[in-house]
Amino acid sequence: MSAPRWDGLLLDARLATLREELGAYGAIADGAIGWKDGVIAFAGRRDELPGDPATLATTVESAGGRWLTPALVDCHTHLVFAGDRAPEFERRLQGVSYETIAREGGGILSTVRATRAADEEALLAAALPRALALRADGVATVEIKSGYGLDFDSERKMLRVARRVGAETGLDVRTTYLAAHALPPEYAGRADDYIAAAIEWLPRLHGEGLVDAVDAFCEGIGFSPAQTRRLFDAARALGLPVKLHADQLSDLGGGGIVADYAGLSADHIEWTNGEAVTAMARAGTVAVLLPGAFHVLRETKLPPLDALRAHGVAMAVATDLNPGTAPLQSLRLAMALACTHFRLTPEEALRGATVHAAAALGLRDRGRLALGQRADIAEWSIAHPAELCYWLGGSLLHTLRLRGTPPPPL
Amino acid sequence: MSAPRWDGLLLDARLATLREELGAYGAIADGAIGWKDGVIAFAGRRDELPGDPATLATTVESAGGRWLTPALVDCHTHLVFAGDRAPEFERRLQGVSYETIAREGGGILSTVRATRAADEEALLAAALPRALALRADGVATVEIKSGYGLDFDSERKMLRVARRVGAETGLDVRTTYLAAHALPPEYAGRADDYIAAAIEWLPRLHGEGLVDAVDAFCEGIGFSPAQTRRLFDAARALGLPVKLHADQLSDLGGGGIVADYAGLSADHIEWTNGEAVTAMARAGTVAVLLPGAFHVLRETKLPPLDALRAHGVAMAVATDLNPGTAPLQSLRLAMALACTHFRLTPEEALRGATVHAAAALGLRDRGRLALGQRADIAEWSIAHPAELCYWLGGSLLHTLRLRGTPPPPL
Ligand SMILES: [Zn+2]
Ligand SMILES: [Zn+2]
Repeated sequence: MSAPRWDGLLLDARLATLREELGAYGAIADGAIGWKDGVIAFAGRRDELPGDPATLATTVESAGGRWLTPALVDCHTHLVFAGDRAPEFERRLQGVSYETIAREGGGILSTVRATRAADEEALLAAALPRALALRADGVATVEIKSGYGLDFDSERKMLRVARRVGAETGLDVRTTYLAAHALPPEYAGRADDYIAAAIEWLPRLHGEGLVDAVDAFCEGIGFSPAQTRRLFDAARALGLPVKLHADQLSDLGGGGIVADYAGLSADHIEWTNGEAVTAMARAGTVAVLLPGAFHVLRETKLPPLDALRAHGVAMAVATDLNPGTAPLQSLRLAMALACTHFRLTPEEALRGATVHAAAALGLRDRGRLALGQRADIAEWSIAHPAELCYWLGGSLLHTLRLRGTPPPPL
Repeated sequence: MSAPRWDGLLLDARLATLREELGAYGAIADGAIGWKDGVIAFAGRRDELPGDPATLATTVESAGGRWLTPALVDCHTHLVFAGDRAPEFERRLQGVSYETIAREGGGILSTVRATRAADEEALLAAALPRALALRADGVATVEIKSGYGLDFDSERKMLRVARRVGAETGLDVRTTYLAAHALPPEYAGRADDYIAAAIEWLPRLHGEGLVDAVDAFCEGIGFSPAQTRRLFDAARALGLPVKLHADQLSDLGGGGIVADYAGLSADHIEWTNGEAVTAMARAGTVAVLLPGAFHVLRETKLPPLDALRAHGVAMAVATDLNPGTAPLQSLRLAMALACTHFRLTPEEALRGATVHAAAALGLRDRGRLALGQRADIAEWSIAHPAELCYWLGGSLLHTLRLRGTPPPPL
C-alpha cells in the first residue's frame, strides 16, 4: 500500500466550482475535493476519484452534503483606519449638512487625522475585528488600501499594518497604494505638488515590499485625469499594476484611463460611458462593483451593467469597507446588495466575489475549485448557492479552509 | 457585614439607559448596573451606588468601559418556516416574473406546503439558527408569528415550535396567531369561510397557551377590512391583544382599524394616512417599521414618518424575518436599513428596537435600563451607540445577559 498522496480530502460535498464549462455555478452534485501543499489536487465527481478515498489522503472527512465554494475574495477595502465616523453618520441623520460637517473637520480628513495619530498597534487593533468579520463570512483573500495617511510615514504605517493583518489572521492580504485618495491639508491648493510627492514615496514603499498595486481617486473632489496618469506612469515604471476609483460621482473617463494602462480594475464606475466599457473589455480590465457605497449614499445612477455584460467585462463585487461611505463588514452582504440594487444574479454575485475579484487583484490562482488552484475553500450551511446572496445577516459559514487548513480562532 | 443584596453588578459601564429624562440615549458615562432575580436593582451613576461594590453583589465584574444598552427586542418575525425561497429569489433576478413564479407554485404557498409537510423537529431545526443569529446580534425577546400553516394542526405546530425556540435558546418568545396571513388553496374563493375557521381555531390554540396576540394581513392580496374586524372581534372576546400587517401596499385604513381595537401595533404602514396616524396616537398603537421588506421589494413609498413624529406615535423597528420579502437575520441590520431608507436617527432606531418594540408586544417590563426592568442587557464593543446602526454586518456584541445571565452557547 502506497503512502497517501494528498494532505486532505473532503467527500460528500456539493461543489460550486465556478468552472464555466460545467454550467450553472459549475455545480457538481456528489463531489470530492483533495489538496496537497495548499493546492487543489482534485475537484470533481466522487466516482472519478483515482482510488479508494482512504488511501488517497492523510485526512479524509465528510462535508455532510454541504455546499463548497471557492473562498471569497474581497478585492476593494479600506479596512485599516482609526476613528470610525459613526457620530458623523448620526449628525447627518439629525439633519446636519455635509458642508457643516466638513467645516467642523469631519469627513475623510477626520479619518486622516485619527489615522496619523494612531500608532501601529492601535491601528492593528482597530483593523483586526474588521478583517475577522470578513473572514467569518468566508473571505480568504482581502485587498487593503492605504490612503488615510497621506504622508510618507503614515502611508507606510498603514501598509505595514495591512501586512500584519494578514500575518495575524491567515488572510492573504494584497496591498494597494492609495496616497492619491484625498489632498492632505498641508498641500491645500497644491494638488500637483502632492501628486509629485506621492510619486516620490512610491518606489521607497515598493522597495520595502509594501505595495502590490497602485490606485487613485479620480473625481472632481479627488484628483484629475492628468494627475492620475502621472501617478500611473510612475507605477508602470516600477512594473506595478494599477486600478482606479473611477467615475463614481461623474464621468471623468476613469474607466478609459485604467484601460489605457491595461489596469487590473476600474472600481465604482456608476458613470462610466459605453466607449470606456469597450476599452475595458479590450484591456481585460475588471469592473469592480461597490453596492455598499451606492446603498449608503442612496445613489440612483446604476453602473452600465448591460454594456458590461454585452462586452464581456468581468464584474467583481467588493465591500469597499471604509468609515465614510461603506461601513460594511460582510462581503456576503455586499453580494446581496449587488443583487438588490444592481440586479445581479446570485451566480454573478458569487463569481464577482471569487474568480472575478481575484482577477481584479491580478490573481489567477484562486476563485475556482479546480486543479492547481489554491485550496481556499468555503464550506457553507446552505441548501442552494443562491442563499449566499439571499440571506441578509446570519451566519452561513460552516468551515473556511485557507490553503487546506482552517485558520486559528483569534 | 451583611450578605450581598444583588446577584450581579457591572461596573465601568457606559449606559444607554434610554430613559427620556436623561437626554440623548439616556446616557450615563460612569455607570453601574446591578440586578437580583433577573430584574434590574440599580442602573445609574457609579457614585450613586448605595455602598461598597464588593458588598453589594455576589458577582462584581467590570464592563471595561463598554456601552450597555437594553437587550434588543425583535417585535415582528416569521422565523418558523420550512423551505427557504432562495431559488425563487434567484429566478426573479434571472428575469422570471412574479406571475410565472406564482403559476409554478412559488410564493408564500410554497412556504405553506413545505411548512405543512415538515414535522416539529424539522421546523425547530430550521428555526433555531435564525433565532440564534438574532440572539448573536443582541436580541433577548422575539415575537414569532404563525401563518404558514393555515390549517389547525399546522398553525398549532408552528406555535408549538415557536415556544420551543424560546426554551432552547433562552430567548423570551412572544407568539402571534396569524392564520389570516394568506388564503390556503383549499379555501380558494371562500375567504369568509376561511376567516370563520381561523376564528374557530383561535380559542382552542389560546386554550393551550400558544397565543399571546392576534394578527392579520389586511391587503388587497390578503384579507379585507371587514374580515380583519371579524377576527379582531374574536380576539377581543378572548381578551387577546391585536396587531396588523397594515397598509403595506395600499391604504385600506389598516392603521385606523388597529386603533379602533386599541391594538398593540400597526406594522409596515407605508400607505397609512394622516387620519389613521391620529387615531393610532390616541389609541397608543405603536407603528412598527419594517425596512427589510421595503429594501428587498425596492419600494419607494415611505411610511408617514413626519406625521408619526408630529403625533408622538412610538416607532418600533423589526426584522420581519421571513422567507419571501425579508430574509433578514439581524435586527441591527434592520436598524441600519431604517436609518438609510427611512432616515431614522440611530437613537430613534435603537429606541425602536428596544423600548418601543417591547411596547408593540404589550411589554412594559423591558426596553430600558431602569429599576424594575428585566435584566436583559446587551454589552457592546463600540465607542458610541450610533455604531449599532452605522456598521453593516460585523459582530459588535460582547456579551448578552438574559435576566442577568449569559445564555448557554448552542
Ligand atoms: Zn474605495
Ligand atoms: Zn410580517
